[in-house]
Amino acid sequence: MVVGGHEDHSGARRILREFVRLSGGFAARIAVVATAAEDPAAAAAAYVDAFASLGAPARAVRVADRREAGDFAVADLLRQATGIFFTGGDQLRITAMLGGTPCEAALRQAHGAGAVVAGTSAGASAMSSTMIVGGRSDASPRREVVRMSPGLGLLPELVIDQHFAQRGRLSRLLAALAQNPGLLGVGVDEDTAFVVDGDGVLRVVGSATVTVLDGRGVRLSTASEADLDQSLTLTGVVLHVLSDGYRFDIRARRPYPPAPEGAE
Amino acid sequence: MVVGGHEDHSGARRILREFVRLSGGFAARIAVVATAAEDPAAAAAAYVDAFASLGAPARAVRVADRREAGDFAVADLLRQATGIFFTGGDQLRITAMLGGTPCEAALRQAHGAGAVVAGTSAGASAMSSTMIVGGRSDASPRREVVRMSPGLGLLPELVIDQHFAQRGRLSRLLAALAQNPGLLGVGVDEDTAFVVDGDGVLRVVGSATVTVLDGRGVRLSTASEADLDQSLTLTGVVLHVLSDGYRFDIRARRPYPPAPEGAE
Repeated sequence: MVVGGHEDHSGARRILREFVRLSGGFAARIAVVATAAEDPAAAAAAYVDAFASLGAPARAVRVADRREAGDFAVADLLRQATGIFFTGGDQLRITAMLGGTPCEAALRQAHGAGAVVAGTSAGASAMSSTMIVGGRSDASPRREVVRMSPGLGLLPELVIDQHFAQRGRLSRLLAALAQNPGLLGVGVDEDTAFVVDGDGVLRVVGSATVTVLDGRGVRLSTASEADLDQSLTLTGVVLHVLSDGYRFDIRARRPYPPAPEGAE
Repeated sequence: MVVGGHEDHSGARRILREFVRLSGGFAARIAVVATAAEDPAAAAAAYVDAFASLGAPARAVRVADRREAGDFAVADLLRQATGIFFTGGDQLRITAMLGGTPCEAALRQAHGAGAVVAGTSAGASAMSSTMIVGGRSDASPRREVVRMSPGLGLLPELVIDQHFAQRGRLSRLLAALAQNPGLLGVGVDEDTAFVVDGDGVLRVVGSATVTVLDGRGVRLSTASEADLDQSLTLTGVVLHVLSDGYRFDIRARRPYPPAPEGAE
């Protein structure tokens, strides 16, 4: 589950509620990982409280440095979770602390076994193989407007950007896509999330939209010949804007209407 | 010629230079119309000076209200121009002052006879049949994020937005396109312009990019059923980012590489 940041914590809490439901509801074992946050204790506590108020048992799993990420007792907490939630902050802290550690292995194992792995804002970006870590939002698509790093790789075909409409991040997502049009660029708005099921079908949850940029049909990308500060040309991207309930098949690259009432 | 605003006035001045060239160079008769500007005299003077410094005779043609727009002597100045340049400001002033007047008729006549009609920023928006006059840049595509009004209609198939990448205006252009996917949405970055020739081929000039959103293949738009504040779904938009020299055939909806050196 990938959340675009600033999800509602006080009203209907649709996104947090959906995470709880997918994690098993009252029977969920939720682990909150606030490694990305500047103040991990405070960030974790806010989510533990939020999940508790929705009736789901949650605990903070502290992974503040690589030593803690190497602790097998900590890794076990992740392995046993039915839902793992990464808070916002700096996505580089997530990969720099977890990369190659027993905690990362436990995360993958839990994910493989069916646990829901969710991330908001920085936690969202970290889900892809190559993650966006920074850039500019006020310029045309150029290689220099996006900086990328190796992510956790739970969603390998995607490159994700968050706070998408709110911060006008089209250029940096396009600049990433221009460098490998085989990827699917996904921009997630605030208070909006998408859930990817086992068949690779993405479903939107939340008040705003998920923008999907499909690069597979790109005819021309000048990314390999352009200087860092040179405006790119990129033709033939297919763009879909999807609101609550709409779905997208990542493999087939096709949008779908919401599932009928009552179906899952 | 449609300019995304903030075109270079002090360096290579590629956009202003191209306007002068298309208008006839030393033999040009350029009319500057600053109707959109808050201080029309100052805005017009800046462009008259800019064109003069490029060797082209230019004069300010004052159309500050509908009385002046009805003045046949003023209209004659527009009719005789080989290049007419609309400054930035408020696009509603352009249409509210010129709409249905002899000056507007003269503008169309000059355009039909081959004069180059250019507009920057507000002047750019006014070129389409339905023009964007305002909206929000920090939200997902919803009907309420874009306000539209009747424009001058010199480029009837287009809906234009300016300062595009710099102000993150994807959502409002998509919200406009969702309401009539038959249009071609064109987002023009600052210091960037496009020129449309007699065959309806658009060519990019400038340092950044022109983003073309082709709605013809849209499979689904929820614009007619969504509330004003409801996030839209819009699938199957084809997006092209075009940098300097790249072209786009508006009728065929196809991008083209730059023309070979020396060709026009």
